[in-house]
Amino acid sequence: MCQACHGLDGLSKHPEAPHLAGQVENYLSKATQAYRTGERKNDMMTIVAKDLTDEDIANLAAFYASIQIEVVPP
Amino acid sequence: MCQACHGLDGLSKHPEAPHLAGQVENYLSKATQAYRTGERKNDMMTIVAKDLTDEDIANLAAFYASIQIEVVPP
Repeated sequence: MCQACHGLDGLSKHPEAPHLAGQVENYLSKATQAYRTGERKNDMMTIVAKDLTDEDIANLAAFYASIQIEVVPP
Repeated sequence: MCQACHGLDGLSKHPEAPHLAGQVENYLSKATQAYRTGERKNDMMTIVAKDLTDEDIANLAAFYASIQIEVVPP
């Protein structure tokens, strides 16, 4: 479900959706929890986060954080 | 100022701060605006965003979005 907006590899092609690839795990889980509680609001994320369990959120955060990214030298 | 938490190259070494390198520009500017208005809250960002001008936010979003990142194949 996440891949529709955030990309197959965690690199978003959607102008409103952030890249998740390689993102800080703790940040990802807190952001998703904030969407679930309603502390953070977003048309799409508010809908999709509400059915996620704590385990789902932990797994998603670990998955996206595990994707290795690197900065391409200019 | 941003670099203290988000890294010199936009890759955070701080467990609470997300990477900004290569992030979607529109997402970065909206997120920073949301911190400035108080719609999004964070101990650090709420303080630092409140003095940013619209031009500052546009420049910061453009700068971090311009850093090229790539996924490292597993």
